Amino acid sequence: MSILVVGSVAFDGIQTPSGKVDRVLGGAATYFSLSASFFTDVRVVAVVGDDFSAEDEAVLVKRGVDVSGIERVAGKSFFWQGEYGENLNEAKTLKTELNVFESFNPKVPKQYLDSDFVFLANIHPTLQKHVHDQVPKAILTGLDTMNYWINSTPKELAETLKGVDALLINDTEARILSKQNSLPRAAQKILTMGPKVLVIKHGEYGATAFFREGGLHPFRAPALPMEEVVDPTGAGDSFAGGFMGYLASQPELNREVFKRAMFYGGVMGSFACEKFGTGRLQQLTRGEIDARFQLFRELSHLG
Amino acid sequence: MSILVVGSVAFDGIQTPSGKVDRVLGGAATYFSLSASFFTDVRVVAVVGDDFSAEDEAVLVKRGVDVSGIERVAGKSFFWQGEYGENLNEAKTLKTELNVFESFNPKVPKQYLDSDFVFLANIHPTLQKHVHDQVPKAILTGLDTMNYWINSTPKELAETLKGVDALLINDTEARILSKQNSLPRAAQKILTMGPKVLVIKHGEYGATAFFREGGLHPFRAPALPMEEVVDPTGAGDSFAGGFMGYLASQPELNREVFKRAMFYGGVMGSFACEKFGTGRLQQLTRGEIDARFQLFRELSHLG
Repeated sequence: MSILVVGSVAFDGIQTPSGKVDRVLGGAATYFSLSASFFTDVRVVAVVGDDFSAEDEAVLVKRGVDVSGIERVAGKSFFWQGEYGENLNEAKTLKTELNVFESFNPKVPKQYLDSDFVFLANIHPTLQKHVHDQVPKAILTGLDTMNYWINSTPKELAETLKGVDALLINDTEARILSKQNSLPRAAQKILTMGPKVLVIKHGEYGATAFFREGGLHPFRAPALPMEEVVDPTGAGDSFAGGFMGYLASQPELNREVFKRAMFYGGVMGSFACEKFGTGRLQQLTRGEIDARFQLFRELSHLG
Repeated sequence: MSILVVGSVAFDGIQTPSGKVDRVLGGAATYFSLSASFFTDVRVVAVVGDDFSAEDEAVLVKRGVDVSGIERVAGKSFFWQGEYGENLNEAKTLKTELNVFESFNPKVPKQYLDSDFVFLANIHPTLQKHVHDQVPKAILTGLDTMNYWINSTPKELAETLKGVDALLINDTEARILSKQNSLPRAAQKILTMGPKVLVIKHGEYGATAFFREGGLHPFRAPALPMEEVVDPTGAGDSFAGGFMGYLASQPELNREVFKRAMFYGGVMGSFACEKFGTGRLQQLTRGEIDARFQLFRELSHLG
């Protein structure tokens, strides 16, 4: 099955306790696409400037990602600069240059209209809805958002959420969106807003999925205890890519498939942190992914 | 097999977002004993004042706990008063009255000298060592400590740690003790200090065990996503009671037994949070424990 993703394709400048890079390929749609490409066919809707080179494009094309929906506009691509301290769960944004992203009006090309799955990466909720409306027959639509949209565009986000099947956010976002401190209570509330599945990501502690049907019935997947998190940028989008990509690769969606998708999400998130930018995802093999899936099982399963 | 625990038997005044109690039975040794009593024989070494009533004692005796090592001294028992805000992981201490605990010099009674397992709850590391020295033939000794001892008595703690098999602490304590931010690196360092097993507790996110042998080989057990944490006081000691109690109940100690012990730790910690003080542990049945163990498995295991 195919997945359409809409989101940023960008360049990042990143500093972490492990080092520094001035400008690497990044953006939510980039991480998501690379990650999901190990499981299924991926199609990207995004906008880039004329600084997006043939080499940048090749990173996606090499992984079989369909880039025909990446619009090219005169000007510079979205650029983000951030810094992580010892607490690698939170980045301090040093610079955000929207550039060509400022007037991004995502259009789904004809050849993408039959996409089976859709992932609406973290952009303005109205743009997310606009894309979703163009692919109404998708089997499952996932969404990411952030505090900025939760706080500044609550009505638009509420509208967009109504039509979404799976929401992937972190602890803080879940608490702010639901106005509930307890995560199970946050989940109960959010699962009345539209999504049937809520995935709450806990950073280095893993992630929990809550389901609307059957009384929340949470499922908790571990994260890998990592000696060194080189660069956490894109870990959440890589999680989403593993999660959605695995779902799209399965003939049927059931509870067990969602549980495995949570594990694949954690696996892909862990790889993303091993090198700066998309470095590790570019080199990855399916064999390594399966081996780490097994490691996650050993990490968390009784005999 | 039998477990000897040394630590506080005390009274607590507790305020949480769920309510308030002025004075309930508490203390690390109390929570530990009640929790471990569901798995094996427990013996307590502690000191109480003359405000420790027959009813207080009955709470332990009813669970089959051997209280002959609880010394009675004229004066008042240890009293702690604390408050939890929305972040239930951290208590704000409002009052600490050491009372009879101030001159506590734990003596292991003759009838306890054959104890198979020892748990040194959170007291001055020199007192912990003093108790441990009296039971040198124990199969496995566990220890808890806190930031206060790590910072104020580092040498004494280092001495005590040398002889200990299992250390149970939380994320912050592990980071401070090891001076490492990454938990696997903290574990590597701490596992050179004496313990063969390090259990790092992550509050609502579960706990990770690291092993000295076989290259850390971490194992992560979940915590139960709880709608309402009524009172987190004693959750860590109840975890320790489930962990150590289960170990002591097994004919052999191997990796699989340690993994299950991590689950039982989480199970007992979750029960402790359901009512104020030891309320829930007092009412608990082994059947409920086994049912929750099964719930933890469903929460975290692929099919």
